[in-house]
Amino acid sequence: MERVLRLVISCPDRVGIVARVSGFLAQYNGSILEANHHADLEQGWFFMRNEIKASSLPFGPEELSEKFSPIAKDLNMSFEVTDTYAKKRIALMCSKDSHCLADILNRWNSGDLPCDIPCVISNHDDLRRLVEWHGIPFFHVPVDKDNKAEHFQKIEELVSEYEVDTVVLARYMQILPDALCRKMPNKIINIHHSFLPSFIGARPYHQAYQRGVKLIGATCHYVTGDLDAGPIIDQDVVRISHRDVVEDMVRLGKDCEKSVLARGLRWHLEDRVLVHGNKTVVFN
Amino acid sequence: MERVLRLVISCPDRVGIVARVSGFLAQYNGSILEANHHADLEQGWFFMRNEIKASSLPFGPEELSEKFSPIAKDLNMSFEVTDTYAKKRIALMCSKDSHCLADILNRWNSGDLPCDIPCVISNHDDLRRLVEWHGIPFFHVPVDKDNKAEHFQKIEELVSEYEVDTVVLARYMQILPDALCRKMPNKIINIHHSFLPSFIGARPYHQAYQRGVKLIGATCHYVTGDLDAGPIIDQDVVRISHRDVVEDMVRLGKDCEKSVLARGLRWHLEDRVLVHGNKTVVFN
Amino acid sequence: MERVLRLVISCPDRVGIVARVSGFLAQYNGSILEANHHADLEQGWFFMRNEIKASSLPFGPEELSEKFSPIAKDLNMSFEVTDTYAKKRIALMCSKDSHCLADILNRWNSGDLPCDIPCVISNHDDLRRLVEWHGIPFFHVPVDKDNKAEHFQKIEELVSEYEVDTVVLARYMQILPDALCRKMPNKIINIHHSFLPSFIGARPYHQAYQRGVKLIGATCHYVTGDLDAGPIIDQDVVRISHRDVVEDMVRLGKDCEKSVLARGLRWHLEDRVLVHGNKTVVFN
Amino acid sequence: MERVLRLVISCPDRVGIVARVSGFLAQYNGSILEANHHADLEQGWFFMRNEIKASSLPFGPEELSEKFSPIAKDLNMSFEVTDTYAKKRIALMCSKDSHCLADILNRWNSGDLPCDIPCVISNHDDLRRLVEWHGIPFFHVPVDKDNKAEHFQKIEELVSEYEVDTVVLARYMQILPDALCRKMPNKIINIHHSFLPSFIGARPYHQAYQRGVKLIGATCHYVTGDLDAGPIIDQDVVRISHRDVVEDMVRLGKDCEKSVLARGLRWHLEDRVLVHGNKTVVFN
Repeated sequence: MERVLRLVISCPDRVGIVARVSGFLAQYNGSILEANHHADLEQGWFFMRNEIKASSLPFGPEELSEKFSPIAKDLNMSFEVTDTYAKKRIALMCSKDSHCLADILNRWNSGDLPCDIPCVISNHDDLRRLVEWHGIPFFHVPVDKDNKAEHFQKIEELVSEYEVDTVVLARYMQILPDALCRKMPNKIINIHHSFLPSFIGARPYHQAYQRGVKLIGATCHYVTGDLDAGPIIDQDVVRISHRDVVEDMVRLGKDCEKSVLARGLRWHLEDRVLVHGNKTVVFN
Repeated sequence: MERVLRLVISCPDRVGIVARVSGFLAQYNGSILEANHHADLEQGWFFMRNEIKASSLPFGPEELSEKFSPIAKDLNMSFEVTDTYAKKRIALMCSKDSHCLADILNRWNSGDLPCDIPCVISNHDDLRRLVEWHGIPFFHVPVDKDNKAEHFQKIEELVSEYEVDTVVLARYMQILPDALCRKMPNKIINIHHSFLPSFIGARPYHQAYQRGVKLIGATCHYVTGDLDAGPIIDQDVVRISHRDVVEDMVRLGKDCEKSVLARGLRWHLEDRVLVHGNKTVVFN
Repeated sequence: MERVLRLVISCPDRVGIVARVSGFLAQYNGSILEANHHADLEQGWFFMRNEIKASSLPFGPEELSEKFSPIAKDLNMSFEVTDTYAKKRIALMCSKDSHCLADILNRWNSGDLPCDIPCVISNHDDLRRLVEWHGIPFFHVPVDKDNKAEHFQKIEELVSEYEVDTVVLARYMQILPDALCRKMPNKIINIHHSFLPSFIGARPYHQAYQRGVKLIGATCHYVTGDLDAGPIIDQDVVRISHRDVVEDMVRLGKDCEKSVLARGLRWHLEDRVLVHGNKTVVFN
Repeated sequence: MERVLRLVISCPDRVGIVARVSGFLAQYNGSILEANHHADLEQGWFFMRNEIKASSLPFGPEELSEKFSPIAKDLNMSFEVTDTYAKKRIALMCSKDSHCLADILNRWNSGDLPCDIPCVISNHDDLRRLVEWHGIPFFHVPVDKDNKAEHFQKIEELVSEYEVDTVVLARYMQILPDALCRKMPNKIINIHHSFLPSFIGARPYHQAYQRGVKLIGATCHYVTGDLDAGPIIDQDVVRISHRDVVEDMVRLGKDCEKSVLARGLRWHLEDRVLVHGNKTVVFN
């Protein structure tokens, strides 16, 4: 795989941003493989993502970042330089259901997901064998109503120890404490098994069954302290009918959940998701 | 078009219903063109719809109904016999937006919607010319906060005068009074411009924009006294992105609204929608 | 899981079939959990599928079959009685790509696919470890242009030895010989990575890229001697754009392939797919 | 509506194009409302589209074009400047089916389609009343096997007389002569009622019915001399089942056709479709 550097920018909108940024890259002969920008005219905010062929630049990611800093400062930009040779480190968290976990592990194992998976954490031991078969350490961290603080303390320790960039809740069924969410803003990805904002919280397929909807869905979003209300990365739906009972919805929904989560995770890994307020710009 | 009689049944579930009904039809040599049944095992309720070639029966719809009554009584059935030669009479209600109205009128005008449209009622005069071009009487019945009772009184009179079977709210933006909803249960069809139960009530696209969803939708449902909470007939969604502002959602949503409404209306006209509690069985 | 018997019927259409069949079932107090029928008026052919609660009948599948035979004979029916307690035996065939295989194995392992998988056969050894982890025998049967007869002979032996009901080609990239297809009509399921009949044969994503289509797809079908031309069970598509090169299509298509194959396979396992000529009736 | 100028560019790819173009626009304080670019790395070709707030520039479209010419020359660009205040002039061509025509006319009449429609041309007189109600001249230009040359001669005259930019074949069922296609490259839009390249040519729904596909589709494409083989702008599909006969497919397909055509036409009107070889880049 060709090495690629990514320059991702978010700043107040004004005339000439693209000219400054692309002029900067052209000055160093940077070959742009893909570029996207978006101006949110209501918010007056500007978003940009550039993929640059690393070999076309006379320097690496640190120097790129350093050389770009004066421009960023001048234009009030927050920006990030990432490097496809420095893969993100993902901790997967799961419970008992294997469909999302197995799907992500298979993609990763096939070389289809550009990340490292240093560990998997679960409140149940059921999926240990599946995880360990992939050569990934599995941590069983049980939780009940009396040891929540301890449980999440242990999780934080693992996240820290394994230098985790992003936590993926692959049908991990516990609500994360607000404090943890705040420590990792836009770094915790959840898959919720409904088409949000419909059916927030527990047992969304049961809620969907009661309401008699004709489509069910899944939503991939960043986790905030506000339950199922964080910035949405992607959503999708699947058609159901009067013949489908809750058990059918659960089964049909699984396919939706795993593909939406995989899509959202990929975009996150490729730095395609920019968060502003409670909304996302997705350069896909 | 070949004349077809439809026998639509709803009753408590038990063994032998299909045998009784199909035995009855076979006894008179009734040729079944399409048949569907569904047992809701949780509710213990049974639903059935038969399309019978009229020419294969030795009698018409009234006698079919009469002859079937003893079976229905025996099995606690509610049932209905309808006749494709007796088209349903639909009153369309609209406001200023033409997309749903024009779409239904074009389908009707092309012979694609099997119904009569004896009148169109609107609280604005804007769409009069479009309606009258189709040779349909248009009634402008203005409404403001002081004359609501009078407005809905007039609507009821028109519904009665024109012998209307079904009212279709084709983006008519007023909330019907509870009393009117009760008079026409499962006979008033609305198109709501969101994927219910998300974004109930006013300005759903604005709500969707605020929430940052990645799909918007439309829902066709029967109207009850409970706002946007009646039995859902059909729903669909369309993908949007961060580039789409409310104005784009309105435009993209229109296509979704008009196709979902047309589909739901067609199923209603063909007696494919059976309501039980707050849910529908749709034999499509 | 409640034991269910299925009675699946195909015969020339005429008046009274449903009455005869449902009368027969009612006579023995058979409780119908789900029933579907379809009359193909152009072909003059009738299709029916009944799910009967086994415990409601006074006899088992063999006697059901025996008792139904006179009716079947009388009405020129071909029919089959299946039993959810006698799971179908599926041989999976694969090559190097793991996405379809891993997906099916995970569904099976989670109890989501009602079948036995007595063996997996591949012309490459790459996926052995994945298969054996699931406790399933893996057979590496290499093939090259000089040993095709031998290769397929070995496959037939395995199919016979393991009493295989259905062969699933989970991205097995060889063309089966006509003779083998004829031996197992409607018992070999393939997933083709295009929206058939577009892009028959090799490298469909390359063909799609050349043509500049805006959607790519996958097709699950029964295999006949006619390449990619057998009866279609299910299809689906995924949207692409000018940004997607062949490599992206391959990646995006995988999700489509695995979900379409899983859906088609499930319907086959549940005896929901009836073949007539080169087309399928799918009672889903 | 705010006046917008669009600068649309196509050229060989090289380093620094974005910097040159955006630097040029920034130099004149051009406020970019939306910008997209795409590098086709296989073809070595670069595509760009900029929407510029007209009021932010010190000059109009002609001078913009003039001032940009040296850059274009230097970089071997072909480019076009368009102006939302100079609406494209669209000639609609139709036959007997009204669904696409009525849909486009309703969108245009509601102000949803940014174009002028100076005339409608048909080989049948059936839709005259619908067209004339919208205040648009309708030309009935009959065609049979003996007067084809004359028919198309007349069409060319109308296109010339009404200063038509783009011809839209809204289910006009004749094949245009090669010479006419060559005169208006990427200026004639057709809606084909299949998911191309499946079912090229006549009666695609009949072909789809014969093949037993589970999805039918529609394709919006530019017309070339090669039947149904021109650059694809957009496609979509709709699910069908074994219950649907050709007549049902025709009905279901209409919704697909009209929405795909409307989408493709809108993108064309907004200069979002760039053709290269036989493929399109669609900046939507």
